[in-house]
Amino acid sequence: MADKIRIGVLGASGYTGADLVRLAYTHPKIEITTLTANSHAGKPMKAVFKHFSHVTLPDLVTIDDADWSSVDAVFCGLPHGTTQAITKSIFQSHPHVKILDMSADFRLKDPAAYKEWYGLDHVATDIQPEAVYGLTELYRDDIAKARLVACPGCYPTAVLLSLVPLAKSGLIDATDIVIDAKSGVSGAGRGLKENTLFCEAGEGLSPYSVGKHRHSAEIEQEIGFAAGLDGLRVNFTPHLIPMSRGELTTSYVRMNQGASAADLRQLLIDAYASDPFVTVLDEGVLPQTQMVRGSNYVAMNVVPDRIPGRAIVISTLDNLVKGSAGQALQNFNIAYGLEETMGLKQLPLFP
Amino acid sequence: MADKIRIGVLGASGYTGADLVRLAYTHPKIEITTLTANSHAGKPMKAVFKHFSHVTLPDLVTIDDADWSSVDAVFCGLPHGTTQAITKSIFQSHPHVKILDMSADFRLKDPAAYKEWYGLDHVATDIQPEAVYGLTELYRDDIAKARLVACPGCYPTAVLLSLVPLAKSGLIDATDIVIDAKSGVSGAGRGLKENTLFCEAGEGLSPYSVGKHRHSAEIEQEIGFAAGLDGLRVNFTPHLIPMSRGELTTSYVRMNQGASAADLRQLLIDAYASDPFVTVLDEGVLPQTQMVRGSNYVAMNVVPDRIPGRAIVISTLDNLVKGSAGQALQNFNIAYGLEETMGLKQLPLFP
Amino acid sequence: MADKIRIGVLGASGYTGADLVRLAYTHPKIEITTLTANSHAGKPMKAVFKHFSHVTLPDLVTIDDADWSSVDAVFCGLPHGTTQAITKSIFQSHPHVKILDMSADFRLKDPAAYKEWYGLDHVATDIQPEAVYGLTELYRDDIAKARLVACPGCYPTAVLLSLVPLAKSGLIDATDIVIDAKSGVSGAGRGLKENTLFCEAGEGLSPYSVGKHRHSAEIEQEIGFAAGLDGLRVNFTPHLIPMSRGELTTSYVRMNQGASAADLRQLLIDAYASDPFVTVLDEGVLPQTQMVRGSNYVAMNVVPDRIPGRAIVISTLDNLVKGSAGQALQNFNIAYGLEETMGLKQLPLFP
Amino acid sequence: MADKIRIGVLGASGYTGADLVRLAYTHPKIEITTLTANSHAGKPMKAVFKHFSHVTLPDLVTIDDADWSSVDAVFCGLPHGTTQAITKSIFQSHPHVKILDMSADFRLKDPAAYKEWYGLDHVATDIQPEAVYGLTELYRDDIAKARLVACPGCYPTAVLLSLVPLAKSGLIDATDIVIDAKSGVSGAGRGLKENTLFCEAGEGLSPYSVGKHRHSAEIEQEIGFAAGLDGLRVNFTPHLIPMSRGELTTSYVRMNQGASAADLRQLLIDAYASDPFVTVLDEGVLPQTQMVRGSNYVAMNVVPDRIPGRAIVISTLDNLVKGSAGQALQNFNIAYGLEETMGLKQLPLFP
Repeated sequence: MADKIRIGVLGASGYTGADLVRLAYTHPKIEITTLTANSHAGKPMKAVFKHFSHVTLPDLVTIDDADWSSVDAVFCGLPHGTTQAITKSIFQSHPHVKILDMSADFRLKDPAAYKEWYGLDHVATDIQPEAVYGLTELYRDDIAKARLVACPGCYPTAVLLSLVPLAKSGLIDATDIVIDAKSGVSGAGRGLKENTLFCEAGEGLSPYSVGKHRHSAEIEQEIGFAAGLDGLRVNFTPHLIPMSRGELTTSYVRMNQGASAADLRQLLIDAYASDPFVTVLDEGVLPQTQMVRGSNYVAMNVVPDRIPGRAIVISTLDNLVKGSAGQALQNFNIAYGLEETMGLKQLPLFP
Repeated sequence: MADKIRIGVLGASGYTGADLVRLAYTHPKIEITTLTANSHAGKPMKAVFKHFSHVTLPDLVTIDDADWSSVDAVFCGLPHGTTQAITKSIFQSHPHVKILDMSADFRLKDPAAYKEWYGLDHVATDIQPEAVYGLTELYRDDIAKARLVACPGCYPTAVLLSLVPLAKSGLIDATDIVIDAKSGVSGAGRGLKENTLFCEAGEGLSPYSVGKHRHSAEIEQEIGFAAGLDGLRVNFTPHLIPMSRGELTTSYVRMNQGASAADLRQLLIDAYASDPFVTVLDEGVLPQTQMVRGSNYVAMNVVPDRIPGRAIVISTLDNLVKGSAGQALQNFNIAYGLEETMGLKQLPLFP
Repeated sequence: MADKIRIGVLGASGYTGADLVRLAYTHPKIEITTLTANSHAGKPMKAVFKHFSHVTLPDLVTIDDADWSSVDAVFCGLPHGTTQAITKSIFQSHPHVKILDMSADFRLKDPAAYKEWYGLDHVATDIQPEAVYGLTELYRDDIAKARLVACPGCYPTAVLLSLVPLAKSGLIDATDIVIDAKSGVSGAGRGLKENTLFCEAGEGLSPYSVGKHRHSAEIEQEIGFAAGLDGLRVNFTPHLIPMSRGELTTSYVRMNQGASAADLRQLLIDAYASDPFVTVLDEGVLPQTQMVRGSNYVAMNVVPDRIPGRAIVISTLDNLVKGSAGQALQNFNIAYGLEETMGLKQLPLFP
Repeated sequence: MADKIRIGVLGASGYTGADLVRLAYTHPKIEITTLTANSHAGKPMKAVFKHFSHVTLPDLVTIDDADWSSVDAVFCGLPHGTTQAITKSIFQSHPHVKILDMSADFRLKDPAAYKEWYGLDHVATDIQPEAVYGLTELYRDDIAKARLVACPGCYPTAVLLSLVPLAKSGLIDATDIVIDAKSGVSGAGRGLKENTLFCEAGEGLSPYSVGKHRHSAEIEQEIGFAAGLDGLRVNFTPHLIPMSRGELTTSYVRMNQGASAADLRQLLIDAYASDPFVTVLDEGVLPQTQMVRGSNYVAMNVVPDRIPGRAIVISTLDNLVKGSAGQALQNFNIAYGLEETMGLKQLPLFP
C-alpha cells in the first residue's frame, strides 16, 4: 500500500456518492481511483455533477469494468437491494479491501427483518455476520477491526446517538418513545420522482411513510439492544421539509421515576465527552439544522416537557455527511488507523 | 346598514391584517373603509404592501384618527396585549359594531391563565365573558349571536379541529397527547427579528418555544372542555419550517380500549360532514400544506401507528387564512347572517 | 347554450391545466365538464393534484374518450407539437366550440418559423390563419371574434406588454434590445427532469437556453410587427430562479433621440389606462414577482439607466396566471362577451 | 512571528466576518486570537452564530478592547464608512500588521468618487495610496507586497474577472456593456431589514438599486483602467434572488470587428490557465451558482448571442467566499508567502 489509500466509490452519480467524493477529494490520505455509475459510464464526473467542474477526477465506469485489485477501500453508495452481490463478491475475492457500505443492505442483523422491511431475500447472509453497524461513536472498537462496515441510515444516526445512551441507562422508558423526524429533500435521492420536484416539495411540508418507514427497523434493533428488549417498537414518523440538506429528530420520551431532563442531558454530555463530532448544546439551546449543514457534526440537547415525567430529546445532523458520507469516511479513518477527524474538519456552512 | 358592510382593520400593516384585506377586497358584501397602522399612518396601503399596487384602498391612519361610527365591523390584527383597551372602548362606545379579534387577547376564559401565559394583567376582564372563542366549526351558533369573537390562534385551529371531536368522544386518552407542530415563517409576523431573516430561516429547520409556546394554553383549555378535564396538559412542540405559509400538526394519541384509527377517522368524517372548509382526506392520503395554501380549507386524516393502541392525527391549514384572517372572515359571515363561504371560495394555490 | 358555459381542459395533469381548473372552478359562468390527461385517465383529479381534495371535479379521461359535443369551449394545456391535430379536429368538427390554446402551436404566423424553432412540420397550417395571438391587451378586438386563440407564452406576455407600445411609438430602437429574463421553476412544467428537482434548482440560479429559447420567436414576431421591421432579432436570455411561480423580465433599451425614461413610462401609463390587469407602478417603484403571485396582474415600470440615452423596462407576472391560464380565461371572457375580469379578481397572494 | 499567524477579525458578527472565521479556523497557519463585535461584546461567538457551537473561539470584544500588538493580521468585515479611522489607526500604530479590508472603504482610488457613491468624506485619504485593490488574479504581485489590501465587492469580483481581460484585449467595446446581476440574500448582510425577511425575499425576485448600485463605481474604475478609458460608464442592474448564497452576472457585450464568442472564451482560458480558483467551463456549459456554493471558485463562460456581433459573458461565485472572505484569505496567503490555496481547498457544497 502506497502512501495514499486508493478508494473506489460505487454509485458515484447519487447524492451520497457525490458527497463522499467531495469529502474524499481533500482527504490527505486518500486517492480516488475508481468511480462507478452504470447509467453514466464513460462520462466525466463533472458532466454528472457540475460542482466538480473545477477538479480532475476519474471518469465514471460500470461496476463490471472496475478493477478492484487496484483499490484498497470501497465506499458503496448504491440503493439497497443492489449491493449485496457486488459487496459479497468484492469481500470474498479481494481480501485486502475494506468496504464501507452506505446502503441499507447489511444494517439489520436479522435476515427475516431485512425481508420484512425491504421486501427482498437477502442474498449475502453468509457475510452479514462480518458486518459491523457503523454508528461510529457506539461501535468504534468493532469498526477498527472490521472489513465490512454497514453505515447507518441518516435518521437512525440522529435518533440513536441521542437515544441509545438514555435507553441503556434506564433513565427512560424505551417502550414509550415517539420520534417525529424531519428531513431535507436530498434524503430522497437524485432519482426522478414527482414529489421531489422543486414545485412539489418547495414551500410546503409533507409527512410520508407514516408508520412504515424502513429506518424504523434499525432504530428498533439498536434501541432494543441498548434497553435489552426483544421486539421493541417505537413510533417513527418522518416529514419532508423544503430544504436540501439537514435532518432533525424530535423524540418524546417518558422518564423513569426520579429522572429529570437535566439528568438525561448530563448523561449525554458524559457519554460524548471525548467524541469530536457530537455536541451536546448548552442548556436551553435548541438544535437546528443550520448548526450542522455540510459538516460531520451532530448537535443535540434535552429539554423538559411541561408534562411532568416527560422530556424532549432533539438531535440534528446533515443527512449526507454525518448521516451518510461523512460517517462512512469517519469509519474509514478508524478502520485504517488514521486520525478520526481527518478530512472531516470543515465547519458547518452558514448561512 | 347599507348594502355593504363597512369594515375597519386594526393593524393593517401586519401579515394577518394584510391577508384580511386581500380577502375582504373581493368579498361581495364588504366595503373596506378604515385601515389603521400607527407606525405607517398617512401612507397608502400599497406603500406598505406592494401586492396592493393594483387596487385602491383607504390610506392608513392611526387608531386614534379612525372614526368608528362609520364602521360596522372591526377586524383586529394587532399583537396581543395592545388590543384590550381599544377593543373594550369600541365594544362599549359603539354598540352596533361587531369585533372580530384575531389577536390572543380574548381567547382564554381565565384571566389568571392570561396573566400566566402572556405576562400581563388583562385590562378588559369585564368584556371577556362576552367573547366567543371563534373556532367556527365548534362554536358556530354562539358566533352567530356574538358581538366579540376571539378568533383562535393558527396552531390551535389545526390542532383543535382534529382533536376536539376525538377527545369529546372518549375514543382517545386526552391526558396522553403529544403534538409536534410545524409552521411557516409568516406565523412569526412581519416584525424585524434575526431568526426570521431569509438567511437564518432558509434552508434550515428549528424547534422553538419548546414546552412553553403560548398556544398551549388555548389548546389545553379547549381539549380540557371537550374531555371534561380540569388542568389538562398536553405536549405541544412547535418548529419553524423554511416556507412562508402553512402549518401542519402531527398529533400522537393513545386510543382507549377497542378503538382503532379507522374509528377515529370515521368520527371526524361524521363530525364535519356538513362543514364546507374541513376535508377529511381519503384513507391513507396524508395531509400536506401544499393542499391548502392561500385557502380557508383544513385537511386532516388519521393514520394507524405501528404501535398497537396508538394513532397519528395529522392536520394542515394556511396559518394566515383558516389560521387567522380567513377564519375571522368566516366568523364575520356567520355573525352577519351571510353565506358562510362568502369571499372564501378561492381554491388553494399550487404550486 | 345554458346559463353556464361548459368547458373542457386538455392536459389537466400539467401545471397550466391545473391552474386553469383552479380559476375556472370559481368562475361564475363556467361549468367544468371534461378534463383529459391520457396518462392519468380514470383517476379523480384530486389523485393527481391534491390541492383539489376539497372539491368535486370530473374524473380524468383520455382525449379520445372526451365528448366534444357536450362542451362549449376547450382550453388546451398540452405540450407543443401534440395539439395541432386535436385542435384542428375539434375546430373543424365542432363549429360551436371556441378553443383557447395555451400551447405554442398556433402562436407563430409563419410555418417556417414554427419548423425552425420547434423542429417539427406544422400539421394544421390550414387553420393557422384563423388563430388570433391572444395577448389580450393588444388584440382584444380580434379575440372577441376569434374561434381559435393562441395564447402567448409566459415570457412573451411579460416582455411584449412592456415593450410593444414603446416599439410602436418609435421612442426606442427596436434593433438594440437586450432582455434578461428570470422565471420560477413551474415554467418548466411538471415533467420529471433532473434540473427541476428541489435539490438541483433550490438555493441556486441557472441561465438556460441562452441564445436559443423558443419564446424568442414570438417576441421577435410581435416586436417586429410593432416596429414595422422584418427579421428583427432581440437578445433574450432566460434564467431559472429558485421559486415556484413568477417571472420578471429586465429589458435594456436604447432610446431614440430626445426620449427619456419618463416619456417611456408615460407612454405605458397612457397605453394601459383602461386595462384592468396592467399596472404601471408609481415612479421609482420597482416591479417584483411578489406583487403578482397567484393573480392575473402584470406590474411594470421604466427606470432611467445611468448611461445617457438608455432605459431599463421591467415587467413581472405570474407565469401560470397572466402568463398562461389566467390570460386564457381573460380571453375566454372576451370571446364570450363576459366581463373581462370575471373569475380573475383574486388579489396576489403575499407572503 | 510564531509558527502560526495570529489574526483578528473586525466585525465578526456579520456574515462576512463569520465566513472568514469559518475558513480561518481550519487554515493550518492561522490562529484566531481576536474577534470584535461592538454590539455583542462579551458574548461567546457561538451565541451569535450557532454553527460555531462545536468549537472554541475567542469571545467577542469591542474594537476598543482589542489588543492589536498581539495580532499579526487584521481582517476587517465592518460596514463601509466605519472602518477608515480604525484601519488608519492600526495601519499607522502597528507597522507589523497587514490589513485585509473586506469593506468598500479603500477600493476607490479617487476620494471624490468615494464621496459621490458613499455620501461621506473619506477620512483616511493619506493611506489610500497604500491600498492595493485585492482582486487576486489581476493584482497578485502588488498584493504580495501590500500592507493594506482593499478586497473587492462580491459583484465586482464576478464581473471584473470575466470582463477585464476582454476589455484589456480590445475584443469587446467597453463602452457598450450591460451587466444584469443576481445575488442571494446574504449579500444584503445580517442587519434587520424588512426586505430580507424570509417572507419578503422568499418565493420572489426583486431588482434593486437599479442604475445606482455602489458596486458600479468599482466596476467602472477597473474596466476603465483595463480599456484605457476615463469616465467609463457601464450598465449594472442587480436583482435579489431567493437563495442565501451565490451570485451570477450575465454581461451582454458587443464585440469589435472580427471577434467571436469563441475568441473571447479562448482569451479567458489563456488568461486564467494557471489560476487555481478560476474555471472557464467547457464549451456550452453554462455557469450556475450551484457550481461554487461554499467554495472559493469562480466559474465563467462565454456564449454567442444570436444577434451577430454580440456575446454573453456569464460568471458565478459564492458572494461570501470568493466574493468576500475567501478572496481575503487568498490575498492573506499571498501577502504572507503561503501557498495561495491554503485553507481554501474545500470543494463546493452541492446539493
